[in-house]
Amino acid sequence: MKPQIAFILTGGSIDKEYGALDRAFTIGNGAVERVLKFVNPNFKADIISLFQKVSVDITEKDKNKIAKTCSKVTTNKIILTYGTDAMTDIGETLATIKDKTIVIVGSLKSQLIKDTDAEFNLGFAVAAVQTLPAGVYIAMSGRIYPWNKCKKNKTSGQFIEK
Amino acid sequence: MKPQIAFILTGGSIDKEYGALDRAFTIGNGAVERVLKFVNPNFKADIISLFQKVSVDITEKDKNKIAKTCSKVTTNKIILTYGTDAMTDIGETLATIKDKTIVIVGSLKSQLIKDTDAEFNLGFAVAAVQTLPAGVYIAMSGRIYPWNKCKKNKTSGQFIEK
Amino acid sequence: MKPQIAFILTGGSIDKEYGALDRAFTIGNGAVERVLKFVNPNFKADIISLFQKVSVDITEKDKNKIAKTCSKVTTNKIILTYGTDAMTDIGETLATIKDKTIVIVGSLKSQLIKDTDAEFNLGFAVAAVQTLPAGVYIAMSGRIYPWNKCKKNKTSGQFIEK
Amino acid sequence: MKPQIAFILTGGSIDKEYGALDRAFTIGNGAVERVLKFVNPNFKADIISLFQKVSVDITEKDKNKIAKTCSKVTTNKIILTYGTDAMTDIGETLATIKDKTIVIVGSLKSQLIKDTDAEFNLGFAVAAVQTLPAGVYIAMSGRIYPWNKCKKNKTSGQFIEK
Repeated sequence: MKPQIAFILTGGSIDKEYGALDRAFTIGNGAVERVLKFVNPNFKADIISLFQKVSVDITEKDKNKIAKTCSKVTTNKIILTYGTDAMTDIGETLATIKDKTIVIVGSLKSQLIKDTDAEFNLGFAVAAVQTLPAGVYIAMSGRIYPWNKCKKNKTSGQFIEK
Repeated sequence: MKPQIAFILTGGSIDKEYGALDRAFTIGNGAVERVLKFVNPNFKADIISLFQKVSVDITEKDKNKIAKTCSKVTTNKIILTYGTDAMTDIGETLATIKDKTIVIVGSLKSQLIKDTDAEFNLGFAVAAVQTLPAGVYIAMSGRIYPWNKCKKNKTSGQFIEK
Repeated sequence: MKPQIAFILTGGSIDKEYGALDRAFTIGNGAVERVLKFVNPNFKADIISLFQKVSVDITEKDKNKIAKTCSKVTTNKIILTYGTDAMTDIGETLATIKDKTIVIVGSLKSQLIKDTDAEFNLGFAVAAVQTLPAGVYIAMSGRIYPWNKCKKNKTSGQFIEK
Repeated sequence: MKPQIAFILTGGSIDKEYGALDRAFTIGNGAVERVLKFVNPNFKADIISLFQKVSVDITEKDKNKIAKTCSKVTTNKIILTYGTDAMTDIGETLATIKDKTIVIVGSLKSQLIKDTDAEFNLGFAVAAVQTLPAGVYIAMSGRIYPWNKCKKNKTSGQFIEK
């Protein structure tokens, strides 16, 4: 039977878009779908786009909405795309969900940039969500951390142990 | 402490190159290094390029060389890039290595193609090698299979259960 | 009034495709359309796909078909995409057409390759066809040559004076 | 003899960069060099990077510096990369230079974005600068306009007749 993976999208750099007419970026929700189209994976993907925000704009209400969605989806394999500057915050919100594997992922560069880390990071998260026991994880920089055990190094961009 | 991952390169579509002057493709060995440069991962990567071949050209001697290299490397986390048409063959050769996690990966399209699956697949393999117990696995199509439990569907290109 | 440019497609490396299931390349006809979509140009483009061949497979009958199409199109601005190994041959066939500007172009690497020259070369041809007097030209390597005044350097890939 | 083309770089969207650690874009000066590397052109390119600015930040002093540089370079074929929102302004400054062909070009999307118009536009400018008589031109949207005969449509992004 094919595994079922829920992708819950909230925005962040991975979904930044740079329209031909825009001075600044906007946030879309197409990165996961574009990448899965390249890969043609042998699992069932449910893509749920909740909102398109950078992490600093996410409210308590938004975080509760994410938590409710995680609880509600019928699969226990969840990948949450999220801005890279507040992954620990949302990890804390989700930590009460005990019976699901939730992998928080994003990218430092938009999936639309030529030398993006988005495709690698999504592939990484897809393996992590299928192999890890229930829990809430941050999957960045080629590493898997429990949500409260890492931080983003502001100089290198790497996610490192805390 | 940073995990240490050995990447053993042997060729396959992931490393196909399409030179401006060549009528047919050639095989290089730069895909893994290029992708890791984008990602700037927080692990130690040892890249070992053994040869550059498509899978049909790999000999018994080549397979033994791969097995010896897997045994010799000081880490127990090994990613082997290999042509997608004979992954089961090399899996069989490596099955006698009992104490290491060996993840066989490749891509259907060269890493140099715009809509390649290479970055996703490498990210996928990097998570798999860190989370799976010792054993030999094929990691393709967003799925992890024991080496003898999958086959490539010749119509869809997907790796499916056998 | 918007200029009208006819793009006559015949194949060549610019339209090479590397399907996930193919051992060798195939030839498609989508390169020009994909590139114009990025650019959103302010001219009228008529895209006419005649056949999908590498230049060595083009017959006298094919060349006559190209010549007839060039004569028939209602615009006097024609861009012909063609394999880079026989541009002079087709130039000779078209040299009898006296009242149109025909720019022969292609690329050394497929438009589907990340570091392709296809986009640059197409842009180059689009300017050339609008600025040059009637005649048959080869537009490659950032240069415009009368069809019988250049050759491809087999070592560098550059089109140089003959 | 190879033609000599001076590329004078001032910034604009074509050179926008989206660093992994930056919230907003920065301006670099690598787009022309990266593109020419793909193309391996058969002309002599002199790349002169004057400053890295979006067009709204360009001062009268900056414009005079551009004009002086155009006058000083030993070739009469000049391509000026510039922000797309003020191309007419700089065109006016340069209009007094009578003996050179100056082509103002840029792109709506950064050269670092996957579906950029930068490569096409640079190719377009390179053909234009070699075929047009002395004068100052804006080369955008697949069209060549005298500097004072076009405007950017703020809805479509296209450069159209004025």
